Amino acid sequence: MLPFARVTILGLGLIGSSIARGIRQHMPSVRVTGYDADPSVRATAVAIDLCDDVADSAGTSVIDADLVILCVPVGAMGAAAADIAADLPADAIVSDVGSSKGSVIEAVRAALPDATFIPAHPVAGTENSGPTAGFASLFHHRWCIITPPEGSDSLAVERVSEFWRRLGATVDTMEPGHHDRVLAVTSHLPHLIAYTIVGTASDLEEVTQSEVIKYSAGGFRDFTRIAASDPTMWRDIFLSNREAVLDMLQRFTEDLTALQRAIRWGKGDELFELFSRTRAIRRSIIDQGQDDARPDFGRSHE
Amino acid sequence: MLPFARVTILGLGLIGSSIARGIRQHMPSVRVTGYDADPSVRATAVAIDLCDDVADSAGTSVIDADLVILCVPVGAMGAAAADIAADLPADAIVSDVGSSKGSVIEAVRAALPDATFIPAHPVAGTENSGPTAGFASLFHHRWCIITPPEGSDSLAVERVSEFWRRLGATVDTMEPGHHDRVLAVTSHLPHLIAYTIVGTASDLEEVTQSEVIKYSAGGFRDFTRIAASDPTMWRDIFLSNREAVLDMLQRFTEDLTALQRAIRWGKGDELFELFSRTRAIRRSIIDQGQDDARPDFGRSHE
Repeated sequence: MLPFARVTILGLGLIGSSIARGIRQHMPSVRVTGYDADPSVRATAVAIDLCDDVADSAGTSVIDADLVILCVPVGAMGAAAADIAADLPADAIVSDVGSSKGSVIEAVRAALPDATFIPAHPVAGTENSGPTAGFASLFHHRWCIITPPEGSDSLAVERVSEFWRRLGATVDTMEPGHHDRVLAVTSHLPHLIAYTIVGTASDLEEVTQSEVIKYSAGGFRDFTRIAASDPTMWRDIFLSNREAVLDMLQRFTEDLTALQRAIRWGKGDELFELFSRTRAIRRSIIDQGQDDARPDFGRSHE
Repeated sequence: MLPFARVTILGLGLIGSSIARGIRQHMPSVRVTGYDADPSVRATAVAIDLCDDVADSAGTSVIDADLVILCVPVGAMGAAAADIAADLPADAIVSDVGSSKGSVIEAVRAALPDATFIPAHPVAGTENSGPTAGFASLFHHRWCIITPPEGSDSLAVERVSEFWRRLGATVDTMEPGHHDRVLAVTSHLPHLIAYTIVGTASDLEEVTQSEVIKYSAGGFRDFTRIAASDPTMWRDIFLSNREAVLDMLQRFTEDLTALQRAIRWGKGDELFELFSRTRAIRRSIIDQGQDDARPDFGRSHE
């Protein structure tokens, strides 16, 4: 049995448009209504036939929805929720796809105090953005973390879980605060580091930017992919998950300082010990199907 | 005309074995002799028919070579050069593939003061190691940087350059000190950062290692690939290119501290400005054929 019959997607970027395509593929009888605050995104959505309907306002888009998914940057969740408050059906379930949960739960609850809100976070994405970047299989074999606040209706949690399973994801549930700390280390800190190193490299006066680009195959190019992710989305994530990000960053900096000291003092054993330990993690990620086993990410060497 | 007729490869790891395979494919009439200090690597090289001959000692391997390529970790270059000193033909050219050049030039010159040494660095690799990890196309469309010390014989430089062009690489020449600073930022610093963050994540007591692995698709997994690189090779690189690495690390740390402060004080504009700037670099890397244009490194989403 389909968990929902009429789904509204608010925000038609990479994730929103992938959900729309995923529904078309996996739940073709579900009616999908889309809305985006940007008129040009709405026009694109119409042009590429992304949804059954593209509404002209947030309120209109939710009028007959039984699931409303907020797919906007985490800093815009509260405003998006407020925009639908007057028109949201009483029995609709509201969910989201935000990469941080504590602040999103607070903002959505403030805007929709009486709504059933079941927060979710599909751990999937690419470095591309916008309505044409989405694809139906984005969530296949990826985790979707549901973070039901205490006292959530268990049937509502199950319906949202089933929705994500239909899109190909494996569902896990987690306490929101724990989610925010896990993602701070597995996603937010890596993005922050990648943005930083790409910035550092492009600022060097003595090494020209063309040299950085030319010789990027030595490792740098790996970082540029996630440093090409959506700027608004990531600005919001760091601001909204501030405490956990700052804590993880502090640990990272301590570890980096220890390595810096080992390099300065020629302590090769300390370097070797760490570099040996980190290999095992890669192995486990591949064994668990969370990354490609082919060397160099399977990049073509023709 | 072939630049060399008899090539000896000392060190049969990823790079050495890729050179051997590349010669077979692109210069099949060249006779390749291999040697590795590890008897099990020599046995594997024989078993997989990597070279025309696998020698039992470094000295024997170079007796009739016109090109000898040192493919050992940069900290072992001096010792490898010393091992061939007594048997190296007077007219042979010695080269290497080390990722740092200043200290390698010093060590090889001390061991072989009279030899013609033309240092080279193919900017290519994967996270895998050993004689079975190599493949003939590893250097295709990659840069090989030749760093001839002042006063180098120009014909010798041209022969080594032509050798790398035959293997599919594009050759550039650079002053050794400049090479070491360019690679510190495009390769050494990224590896150091990746090793650090994977270490930090695996040390967290509150987030279990299984959670780090499960949710690695949020960004973390990108870092685990280069953090799975050969520990000995990378220990040596950081120790041998210490000054340049420490300098780049200092700049990185300053930039990271500025971002940390922006997050703490909620300065979204500063974050957004950087995150927008870093997208352009990715675009250039793809435009110049230094990375895959497919989203998510072309990872399969089935």
